[in-house]
Amino acid sequence: MGNITGKIICTGLGPGDPDLISVRSDRLIRAARHVAYFRKAGRPGQARLIVNGMLASDVTEYPMEYPVTTEIPFDSADYRQLLGSFYDAWATRLARLSETEEVIVLCEGDPFFYGSFMHLYSRLHGRVEIEVVPGINGMTGCWTATGIPITWGDDVLAVLMGTLPEDDLIRHMQGADALVVMKTGRNLPKVRRALARAGRLTDAWLVERGTMDGQRVIRLADADTTDCPYFATVLVHGNGRRPRVDG
Amino acid sequence: MGNITGKIICTGLGPGDPDLISVRSDRLIRAARHVAYFRKAGRPGQARLIVNGMLASDVTEYPMEYPVTTEIPFDSADYRQLLGSFYDAWATRLARLSETEEVIVLCEGDPFFYGSFMHLYSRLHGRVEIEVVPGINGMTGCWTATGIPITWGDDVLAVLMGTLPEDDLIRHMQGADALVVMKTGRNLPKVRRALARAGRLTDAWLVERGTMDGQRVIRLADADTTDCPYFATVLVHGNGRRPRVDG
Repeated sequence: MGNITGKIICTGLGPGDPDLISVRSDRLIRAARHVAYFRKAGRPGQARLIVNGMLASDVTEYPMEYPVTTEIPFDSADYRQLLGSFYDAWATRLARLSETEEVIVLCEGDPFFYGSFMHLYSRLHGRVEIEVVPGINGMTGCWTATGIPITWGDDVLAVLMGTLPEDDLIRHMQGADALVVMKTGRNLPKVRRALARAGRLTDAWLVERGTMDGQRVIRLADADTTDCPYFATVLVHGNGRRPRVDG
Repeated sequence: MGNITGKIICTGLGPGDPDLISVRSDRLIRAARHVAYFRKAGRPGQARLIVNGMLASDVTEYPMEYPVTTEIPFDSADYRQLLGSFYDAWATRLARLSETEEVIVLCEGDPFFYGSFMHLYSRLHGRVEIEVVPGINGMTGCWTATGIPITWGDDVLAVLMGTLPEDDLIRHMQGADALVVMKTGRNLPKVRRALARAGRLTDAWLVERGTMDGQRVIRLADADTTDCPYFATVLVHGNGRRPRVDG
């Protein structure tokens, strides 16, 4: 290491099982001297948990603690202001560090797919040398956990956020073949209602903690939607064109 | 190995760069004694190319050569019959082999995401012990190659096949925020026309051979759509809700 000029490398960690990290990210993480990751204040942080036992003993860690998560509405001016300043400050700090050091940023799933890292990336791109190593996204871990292929042939896949208005959810649920709904949590009752109104509830699965310890795969119709963990994804598998199955 | 009872393990290889294979798949592939993969007759096969230099010297290879690819229409009865028999025969052969051996099936991208392996899986599931190791799908490699995040905030992502009718493409292109169009190839002129009619051509990118040697990222509007390789993906990035960027 000991680069004269450094850089920032964001490594996608995949869906949760450390064995699903890419060879390249695994190598970078084990050799890292500076590691940054997001977490909620007072929590270990999911990204940091995934790499437990992988970091070198002399690593310096930079936990980037969100100033706010669900305490105030995400569409309020206060929320945007607080988060914007938070990302500004960390972008500046990591940029300075990367003048002389290689800095590894840990990111669950894939960094460019609904990742918090993108808010740093948009601030750092063009200012410093920055590289992104893709990862297996969380939804891939979830459909693997169901043991059923998600898309076949000409299937259209729609990826939806549970935060969307119910009518938007219904429209997309009716228009696509395969469905993934992320950011469920407190939105799960609404997501379930939308699936029922779109006529798709009976084919929907709920995957909690896909590929992680405590993984649970159940039919959404059987789920208690009032008690849904953050890492829960709803899936409806596609059933498109395919050669006929004999026997 | 020398298992008394074997199994079938399908390893997702990721988008093309062998460094993006998961730690688990990498380990399985290097230790494998029996490796099967799909390819077009007379070609090395993309899956086999990705693992070049990784296989043990005493490995036995099982190239599964498609009886037909684009010579006859994919929606004809002949095509379905030929492919169905092909998958039946290989499912039977791999099932027999897996009675005593561990068989690794190589699969580009993620096995459950539009993968040919799914046609074996649907025939083998419940008959033999079978495991699927997820991989980074090809579209993730492609959006990483553009250097632009694909989805933010509440963005809806639609994954579309270039084989869909033009009017279906237009409808989905208008309804979603971020777009991925796969299976372009000879459908690229239609895909481009649909994007133009949906008012989204100026934001569309064409990624050829994402993460592989010879990777090319260009604006679709600038592309020669009459000469498009098979490994070409069209992307339109989302631009959803996010905290404001200062400076």
